[in-house]
Amino acid sequence: MIRFSDSMAFAAALKDLPAPDAEFIDAAAARQAILTKPAGSLGRLEEIALFMAGWQGRERPVAERLRAAIFAGNHGVAARGVSAYPAEVTAQMVANFHHGGAAINALAQACGAELTVVAIDLDRPTGDICVEAAMSEADCLAAINAGAAVVEAGLDLLLLGEMGIANSTPAAALCAQAFGGPAGHWIGRGTGVDGEGLIRKADAVERALAVHGGQCINAFETLRRLGGREIAALAGAVLAARMRRVPVMLDGFIGCAAVAPLAKDNPAITGHCLAAHLSAEAGHQRLLAALALEPLLRLDMRLGEGSGAAVAAQIVRSALAAHRDMASFAEAAVASAL
Amino acid sequence: MIRFSDSMAFAAALKDLPAPDAEFIDAAAARQAILTKPAGSLGRLEEIALFMAGWQGRERPVAERLRAAIFAGNHGVAARGVSAYPAEVTAQMVANFHHGGAAINALAQACGAELTVVAIDLDRPTGDICVEAAMSEADCLAAINAGAAVVEAGLDLLLLGEMGIANSTPAAALCAQAFGGPAGHWIGRGTGVDGEGLIRKADAVERALAVHGGQCINAFETLRRLGGREIAALAGAVLAARMRRVPVMLDGFIGCAAVAPLAKDNPAITGHCLAAHLSAEAGHQRLLAALALEPLLRLDMRLGEGSGAAVAAQIVRSALAAHRDMASFAEAAVASAL
Repeated sequence: MIRFSDSMAFAAALKDLPAPDAEFIDAAAARQAILTKPAGSLGRLEEIALFMAGWQGRERPVAERLRAAIFAGNHGVAARGVSAYPAEVTAQMVANFHHGGAAINALAQACGAELTVVAIDLDRPTGDICVEAAMSEADCLAAINAGAAVVEAGLDLLLLGEMGIANSTPAAALCAQAFGGPAGHWIGRGTGVDGEGLIRKADAVERALAVHGGQCINAFETLRRLGGREIAALAGAVLAARMRRVPVMLDGFIGCAAVAPLAKDNPAITGHCLAAHLSAEAGHQRLLAALALEPLLRLDMRLGEGSGAAVAAQIVRSALAAHRDMASFAEAAVASAL
Repeated sequence: MIRFSDSMAFAAALKDLPAPDAEFIDAAAARQAILTKPAGSLGRLEEIALFMAGWQGRERPVAERLRAAIFAGNHGVAARGVSAYPAEVTAQMVANFHHGGAAINALAQACGAELTVVAIDLDRPTGDICVEAAMSEADCLAAINAGAAVVEAGLDLLLLGEMGIANSTPAAALCAQAFGGPAGHWIGRGTGVDGEGLIRKADAVERALAVHGGQCINAFETLRRLGGREIAALAGAVLAARMRRVPVMLDGFIGCAAVAPLAKDNPAITGHCLAAHLSAEAGHQRLLAALALEPLLRLDMRLGEGSGAAVAAQIVRSALAAHRDMASFAEAAVASAL
């Protein structure tokens, strides 16, 4: 199990990212070329097969061991009225995950993923990022390591999700810090906040940036100051997955925002990530572009909790089934193009 | 089993389309409103659940009995060099379907659909639509009924696909006839025809319209003159499915083009249809707009044989799993919005 000993170990790992295995990408591409279909006619399904081949190190990658890891945390900034829901909903939804009643339970089962729920210190909300750092160094490191702990070598795909009332506010702050632009570029209605809530959100993001902006010297420090426990866990999971060459399916705005500070330090971090979907959350399109990720789905989802990742995992399963099972032109005695 | 006795019976059925059951749409919407998620946060997944509820007549619709029906036919117009593949590939691919080696075999299995392959008179290509009608009345009716025959009451979703070398040329002619515009609006590279082939395609579509345009007085006659056996079968399956209230997943350009003449006579025909994906085929975006269908996926697929429909069926499965299995706010003791 990967465990970062301190913030410097985290930074060192982020600097030294492994690449996918070109040999297996080439082998998978050679296989695609002989399957009974016009070249390229399965579009992104073919790209997915090559992507998975490179990270899994298999000519015929598989989608048998899927894990959906959902991290939960609470946020001091929730007290500023930036969410449509009360903060106690975080813990209530975690209980719902454990009892099997949430969307992610149904969606993880539908795509064949086992579900891991990691609630991190829900009774200790982070500091209000408008006036103080979200976490101490020790707390941030612990959250990152809680994320890293869900990564096992041999997972075929890791789906990431989150739950944390008010977490689209720190997520927006992370995006603004990493990629610039006014708060308005990065905030949205989250779970459905009203117009006044939206103004409070923009105000909170601007205050947080004014307080912390100058001191966000690297990914760790940015996560610690502007993030949250579940967000730091997501970042830890993404980095640890890369170190184990486990491909990752990012979910929506929060999941991608957790990667933003990592991408600022090393844009190659998204190389092992698929973007599940374009969320209805306003800032997500800009964020995906900044991360150089093209979403697999556009279904106007905005639930979080890994729901979009679990739906998109179905696309991966289909892509790999076609790549694995199709016959070649020679095997099927089908004529090639004229 | 539905069987149209003649072209007038087909026209009468097209005129008198059943509606979805509003009672179950309302019941499903009421259920969506109490599930543990912000209202509307599952986006199109929620719309899919309501759509399926209305056609299946169930508050909690299911995706247990899925059938993928693939129709195959050959085309006289293939002799004009409008395809990148030789005409014998139609029969070779049908053999590939039967042996389990095609993309649709893998993709149907991945989404849990049984596969029905209906090859219609492959040794009798249709007439060359540039100079004569594609089919006699009897042949067109037989093809329509071959399509209708795959529809069983109790199917939860019918996925439609096709195989027919050169069939994007008659498909383009059907679109131009139904919705107007020059041939160039409706032709594309199909399985990968080159620039000169594309010019031959445009020429073929224009000739076909010049010969038949004035006599395409209704859907049946349009299918008979400009279509093909697998295309008429698709049209028959779509209409028969409507009569049995079986929801349909249309695939790509050809599958949608088969509906174009029906939609010209009665635009309500697409009411029980989902559009699986936006194909890479050039005319498909315009065609979907004309049919008032919004594609579920945009994956640059262009294979046909129902491949996109089978991938999109995974989205339906996920949508219905969430709709069926999620707990309500009351059941899970989760607080609603503030």
